[in-house]
Amino acid sequence: MIHLATFAASVAALALSSAPAFAQEDVPAGYTVSLPDKVTELRDAALKDDLAYSITEGLTSEVGPRLAGTEAEARARDWAVAKLKSLGFANVHIEPFDMPVWVRGEETAEVVAPYRQPLRLTALGNSGATPAQGLTAEVVYFPTYGDLVNAPADSLKGKIAFVSNQMQPTPDGSGYGQFGRARFTGPDIAARKGAAAIVIRSIGTDHSRAPHAGATRFGDGVTPIPAAALSTEDADNLERIVARGEPVRLHLLLTPRQTGIHQSGNVVAEVPGHDPDAGIVLIGGHLDSWDLGTGAIDDASGVAITTAAAKRIMDAGGARRTIRLVWFGAEEVGVFGGKAYAEAHGDDHHVAAAESDFGADRIWRFETNLPDNASAIADRLQRALAPLGITRGEGVGGDGADVGPIMRKGVAAIDLNQSGLRYFDWHHTPEDVLDRVDPEQMRQNVAAWTAMLAIVADAPEKIGPVTPRK
Amino acid sequence: MIHLATFAASVAALALSSAPAFAQEDVPAGYTVSLPDKVTELRDAALKDDLAYSITEGLTSEVGPRLAGTEAEARARDWAVAKLKSLGFANVHIEPFDMPVWVRGEETAEVVAPYRQPLRLTALGNSGATPAQGLTAEVVYFPTYGDLVNAPADSLKGKIAFVSNQMQPTPDGSGYGQFGRARFTGPDIAARKGAAAIVIRSIGTDHSRAPHAGATRFGDGVTPIPAAALSTEDADNLERIVARGEPVRLHLLLTPRQTGIHQSGNVVAEVPGHDPDAGIVLIGGHLDSWDLGTGAIDDASGVAITTAAAKRIMDAGGARRTIRLVWFGAEEVGVFGGKAYAEAHGDDHHVAAAESDFGADRIWRFETNLPDNASAIADRLQRALAPLGITRGEGVGGDGADVGPIMRKGVAAIDLNQSGLRYFDWHHTPEDVLDRVDPEQMRQNVAAWTAMLAIVADAPEKIGPVTPRK
Repeated sequence: MIHLATFAASVAALALSSAPAFAQEDVPAGYTVSLPDKVTELRDAALKDDLAYSITEGLTSEVGPRLAGTEAEARARDWAVAKLKSLGFANVHIEPFDMPVWVRGEETAEVVAPYRQPLRLTALGNSGATPAQGLTAEVVYFPTYGDLVNAPADSLKGKIAFVSNQMQPTPDGSGYGQFGRARFTGPDIAARKGAAAIVIRSIGTDHSRAPHAGATRFGDGVTPIPAAALSTEDADNLERIVARGEPVRLHLLLTPRQTGIHQSGNVVAEVPGHDPDAGIVLIGGHLDSWDLGTGAIDDASGVAITTAAAKRIMDAGGARRTIRLVWFGAEEVGVFGGKAYAEAHGDDHHVAAAESDFGADRIWRFETNLPDNASAIADRLQRALAPLGITRGEGVGGDGADVGPIMRKGVAAIDLNQSGLRYFDWHHTPEDVLDRVDPEQMRQNVAAWTAMLAIVADAPEKIGPVTPRK
Repeated sequence: MIHLATFAASVAALALSSAPAFAQEDVPAGYTVSLPDKVTELRDAALKDDLAYSITEGLTSEVGPRLAGTEAEARARDWAVAKLKSLGFANVHIEPFDMPVWVRGEETAEVVAPYRQPLRLTALGNSGATPAQGLTAEVVYFPTYGDLVNAPADSLKGKIAFVSNQMQPTPDGSGYGQFGRARFTGPDIAARKGAAAIVIRSIGTDHSRAPHAGATRFGDGVTPIPAAALSTEDADNLERIVARGEPVRLHLLLTPRQTGIHQSGNVVAEVPGHDPDAGIVLIGGHLDSWDLGTGAIDDASGVAITTAAAKRIMDAGGARRTIRLVWFGAEEVGVFGGKAYAEAHGDDHHVAAAESDFGADRIWRFETNLPDNASAIADRLQRALAPLGITRGEGVGGDGADVGPIMRKGVAAIDLNQSGLRYFDWHHTPEDVLDRVDPEQMRQNVAAWTAMLAIVADAPEKIGPVTPRK
């Protein structure tokens, strides 16, 4: 879409302009800048990167699922420290923090009327539990989240709400925000209307039996009800059963529980800068994962890509600014790592932040919110990233849950946007495993990140503070 | 492959033949026959069929999984009787038989050394159980089934065998027989060598977390050991862990059990023939399914396609021969329905048998073992099926587990071979659901079956008995 729109705008500009059609003033700034050889050399060498894939393979094979606050996440931190030290990073350490931990229990569902058959689902993070013997109730069907919102107060008393909106893939993943509401706030809304439980169609773009986990949040004073995501195929089946027109009853057994406050932590490593006054470029991804898959695309890839890029800058002699690499803990369940980082490091001199948390498919666009005085950096990024097929977006950067809290303090954002066309097929499901990572596309990511770091960490311009994106 | 070979043979024949290149004798018999208008009309009308999809939708939505010998399969028989009566078939009835029933229990697995992480698997039919608290043992890795076969006697004492051969898709599904041995007889072999348990890579062509169920068989006097199939992705992960070179230990919990003798049954319906002496054309598929999916491609599709075709012949006034349609019970777990049918009906005057049990993707080839005096029937089939893109194979027909026992009594076989390129992605997994059926390809199936019945059931030739395929 962006490609076509840009092309159409260029054609329109040509039609209106007088000859010569390609006068210098028609060439956007990003094409006129020249790049240091070091940037292009580092970028092109990174297209042969194997480190990012190796880190992803190691973390998924040697640790596997690593739910925040559990023993598995602690093992992942130890793994990370050993790996980052062996790679030669400076100042490798864990910054622990405390957080509430929710863990999955049994989870089964069965249609018991008008026909019996099992359904596949998974409890949403922070879901309440059913009684030990389960819960049986009538289903109230809502084709969309809006239908649930518009249901009269108390209309769900004792019932099981079923919200079935189907997310579609988009390049920028924008469907997640819109359709994801059924998960983010649907359970809270259903609970307020008296529902005994809620099942939603998984927030995903696949057609499979693998349900998508993910956190939900109940408002203050609202008692959590059992809340689960059906696989998309099971939602289809339940819709077909509902369409028969007879009352539909479900039996649900969900026994998740809150286990209290436990420790998580961020793993920090650095490539020290040559100029102590030039500030810090913060990069990273998150180390924790949902418990159903091995967290390959969410987000072993992200820590792997950013680590591989930082390692390349380090091996090339470092940069003017310090590159601080963080493998954040406890992102999935409430961005506890990102908040703890911002609390601990809010006064550090950050100049830019960037996160990789959208798989490992190719980067197709970049966006920043660099201040006007540093706009030449974005021009150089455009020049450096174009050979990788990456376009300069027209929006304002500011992605990344973990770097969100620090960006809200006025740190400039640089987003390298990966294609979201496959990501939500596997996100938060058992299918988030190593095989979903395409090594060739992952190398393009490493090349883009390496070029970005080579430009931003060495930029002579002062960067920020900036006004954060809304 | 067949297309290319046939083309190459034709080119070679042309090069060697004298002019005129297209003399009558160069045209194979199948092209020279003419078809009754009724055949082509029925075939072409069937390309708009909706009945087969509707039956598949109904059975998967209103019954769902229907493991042989369970209450769910009994409900499926009642559903079938009601459906077949409502469609107007004659002589609709259930023929019950008894069979041993095995049911799944809990099934979890975890790598406990050198790294802890869960694995996804499913018990194989007839698997033994672990102790209630599970079983922990060292893994012995066999890349192929042949490696297991060649392991020394007693070399697996107290160990868990892991056989990891990976099936690849083929148009004719032939990989199943070869790679499937790891499931069919791998557990028996491992038990004889002293193994405490066996896990195999799923016999499937997918790359997913959905393990493939399926029956295994232990020889007389061999105590069943716990036997399960890892998903292909979990087998990959376990291979990566094995590749680290340290001893690998697995904890397995599998609690399936044999529940004794229970009732299953075949559901029979007929389109009575006009000539009582002309014999019976037996068609059908199987009604039971594995318990993980809803049995859409295995084999709701098969009963649906054959029923839709028979209904079309019935609505067109029937045929010379009786068409007997059977929805067989208990195929998956040992072909109990097919055996019971052959015992009960071995003396009936069957002239031909055909089964649909390979999903609903397009039919690409037909093969028969019609006797020489009835070879004109195969010529007419070739002529009728060519417009559907179906080629005449060079092999001898005889497919279909359920019709196998009756064919071994000398009943001629007619195979309409579906493409197997996707079938083993979903076969026996939770992913065998309605969405895997492509309505357009299913219509091509119904058209082919309708044309086949219109030709075979009305053929003036005497058919059989024949020598069964080996």
